[in-house]
Amino acid sequence: MQAEIITIGDEILIGQIIDSNSAFISKALNEIGVAVYQITSVQDNREHILQALEEANSRSSVVIITGGLGPTKDDITKKTLCQFLDDELVSDKAVWDHIQELFKKHIKTPISDLNKEQAMVPSRATVLHNAYGTAPGMWMKKGNTAFISLPGVPYEMKNLMNDLVLPKIVEEFDRPHIVHRTVLTYGMGESALAEKLEDWENNLPSHIKLAYLPNFSRVRLRLSSTGKDKQALEDDIASEIKKLYQYIGDIIYGEEEDGEIEMQIGNMLAQKNLTLATAESFTGGSIAQAVTSVPGASQYFKGGVVCYATEVKINMLDVPAELIEKHSVVSEEVAIAMAENVKSKLGSDFGIATTGNAGPTKGDSDADVGTVYIGISTPNGTYAQKFSMGRSRERVVRKSVNKAFELLYKEILNF
Amino acid sequence: MQAEIITIGDEILIGQIIDSNSAFISKALNEIGVAVYQITSVQDNREHILQALEEANSRSSVVIITGGLGPTKDDITKKTLCQFLDDELVSDKAVWDHIQELFKKHIKTPISDLNKEQAMVPSRATVLHNAYGTAPGMWMKKGNTAFISLPGVPYEMKNLMNDLVLPKIVEEFDRPHIVHRTVLTYGMGESALAEKLEDWENNLPSHIKLAYLPNFSRVRLRLSSTGKDKQALEDDIASEIKKLYQYIGDIIYGEEEDGEIEMQIGNMLAQKNLTLATAESFTGGSIAQAVTSVPGASQYFKGGVVCYATEVKINMLDVPAELIEKHSVVSEEVAIAMAENVKSKLGSDFGIATTGNAGPTKGDSDADVGTVYIGISTPNGTYAQKFSMGRSRERVVRKSVNKAFELLYKEILNF
Repeated sequence: MQAEIITIGDEILIGQIIDSNSAFISKALNEIGVAVYQITSVQDNREHILQALEEANSRSSVVIITGGLGPTKDDITKKTLCQFLDDELVSDKAVWDHIQELFKKHIKTPISDLNKEQAMVPSRATVLHNAYGTAPGMWMKKGNTAFISLPGVPYEMKNLMNDLVLPKIVEEFDRPHIVHRTVLTYGMGESALAEKLEDWENNLPSHIKLAYLPNFSRVRLRLSSTGKDKQALEDDIASEIKKLYQYIGDIIYGEEEDGEIEMQIGNMLAQKNLTLATAESFTGGSIAQAVTSVPGASQYFKGGVVCYATEVKINMLDVPAELIEKHSVVSEEVAIAMAENVKSKLGSDFGIATTGNAGPTKGDSDADVGTVYIGISTPNGTYAQKFSMGRSRERVVRKSVNKAFELLYKEILNF
Repeated sequence: MQAEIITIGDEILIGQIIDSNSAFISKALNEIGVAVYQITSVQDNREHILQALEEANSRSSVVIITGGLGPTKDDITKKTLCQFLDDELVSDKAVWDHIQELFKKHIKTPISDLNKEQAMVPSRATVLHNAYGTAPGMWMKKGNTAFISLPGVPYEMKNLMNDLVLPKIVEEFDRPHIVHRTVLTYGMGESALAEKLEDWENNLPSHIKLAYLPNFSRVRLRLSSTGKDKQALEDDIASEIKKLYQYIGDIIYGEEEDGEIEMQIGNMLAQKNLTLATAESFTGGSIAQAVTSVPGASQYFKGGVVCYATEVKINMLDVPAELIEKHSVVSEEVAIAMAENVKSKLGSDFGIATTGNAGPTKGDSDADVGTVYIGISTPNGTYAQKFSMGRSRERVVRKSVNKAFELLYKEILNF
């Protein structure tokens, strides 16, 4: 059994918006065992929509259509659905009452004819009540295929999916189980990892699929297994993941449901009642920003100093001017002093420090673009490591932030 | 003339990643006068890829294919392209040399057979040099249609598009002119803006289209005009933008090519030889991060203090404990003290400060979630303003960062 997604609207095709709806829908469908065969983004155009509907109908049992339902969209989508289904539009009393209520409560302008038309639905459609907007969801059938039309506004679409569409698919269709688990690794590139895992990968059972998902020096490994016996699928994947730990246990930092590394660091710090402070030069606040993006960070994050200018390292972090003079501002010694001093000045248990050159030109030191030092101070001592992070400014920063978290993660784990 | 985009890979179809590549490509193509007819996301599967290629070939002059080129992808994409084009894979010496160089310089592990295969390209393909990765771009022809295969890594894809693909499309295809100009506004929501601009919008010439692009309390207004006479198109849009200034000149902060507001602030500071420092509580380094994302920021950005914990405000920024005691940590008085003190301690001309509660729960103060104060210190004085930024943590932070830059922008502009 497979599904397709059709998104209708020019916004996606002119690059005005990123299609995050399809990612949400795909993920939700996969979780209930429905594979998505194709996602197609088409224009607000009758012929084009018809063609996409017909192609999807020939392949899939469930077709989810988003967009093309707003009050200014001229109803092309609904009219085209009627043509496709050999049906006609009728006014739905429940939808019309709901529109009137929304206007009375929240919108407070008179209802226009365009809004009135939002109550029109194909006569044989099952209306899916959209509590958060004026455009209803609609569930329609052609042969054995379900066509489900949803508004494009993300939170309206998401609520309709969760509350009505997914339960109805589960009820009406027999589906295999799909079990996914995603292992998070760091510090090794995609091809080196693939080589290291070659034996293991070649011996995976045929119903388990592996995908490498790389992102700035971290690779996520996703295992997916499809079949009828959910428990057996889970057991099979668990046993493969156990083997995986034997190959690369030292570079695994968890699984997807554990959350990103900054979240895991936060959980460990909170559990162990420990605190963190940051001293950032070229990363410019990116580490602090990532740390504080986790709700509840105030429990373990004291704060930090963004010491972009050399004088700020001296004045705010008490890094000795002679140390900078002697070793240069991009050096192991300065990274160590920054990490130690931010820890003691802010009264935290751990300190992270970054100093380096992200480019595009050389800064206050002679260091090559891409040369960075990351310092880690723990209650047991302080060290700094040197890295070459390439030449792109954005990548140098993002890879260094990732690397800093990886070093810190290991320290806290072993503390 | 129209184009299509085909994305290859299961990651999008299982909802693991959001397809931001297609939005980038669509936008870039539209800017050079090439409309995107359809975006199709297909599986890593030979039959499926072939079918998508054939359908695109029957409709469009340019087909851009992303993904399916990584070293672990089993070469399905390239083999399928060969089948489609009736061609065969050959090893490309320049690509092979480049792979060897990348490994020697940056990767430092031995080259695997998988990497070696990345040097294989269809014999009649024009290789597009990928300076940032091992998978080359490829430009192929079937009849009059160009098929352009690009790696799915966003950074590599974007560089190939900008440096090689777009110029080659411009050179090889006749296109109508599309002139876009995008005006940047702040401080007014989409519907209030639409109401204010109703008259102007209704009187726009029919060949000029207007789009509202909202993003966290800022709305960009994009005017697009398509036709044969480029100069006439430019003149028409310029005349409409002149009128636009009469309606909302007070909330326009520039046009898209001027860059985002933090870039404009940076340019103004550099030109006027002025400097900036930041004191951030709940924004946790987001302002410093945005400031330092602009290349050359070291010219005008001294640094900042991320004073997440109340004690850091006292110890690192000398905010008097009595002031916090008396007015609460989320108050006008504390925001003013933070902005003034970071300015004087870091020796900058301007200081920005944020204190507030981003949620999800109340912090060190009684302030409601979403209550924030932004302080601005200039050489002429200091003030702070209170805002209610809603209840979503991420939105509170992003809207506050935007607002802080808007306040600062006005101060520097008028200085």
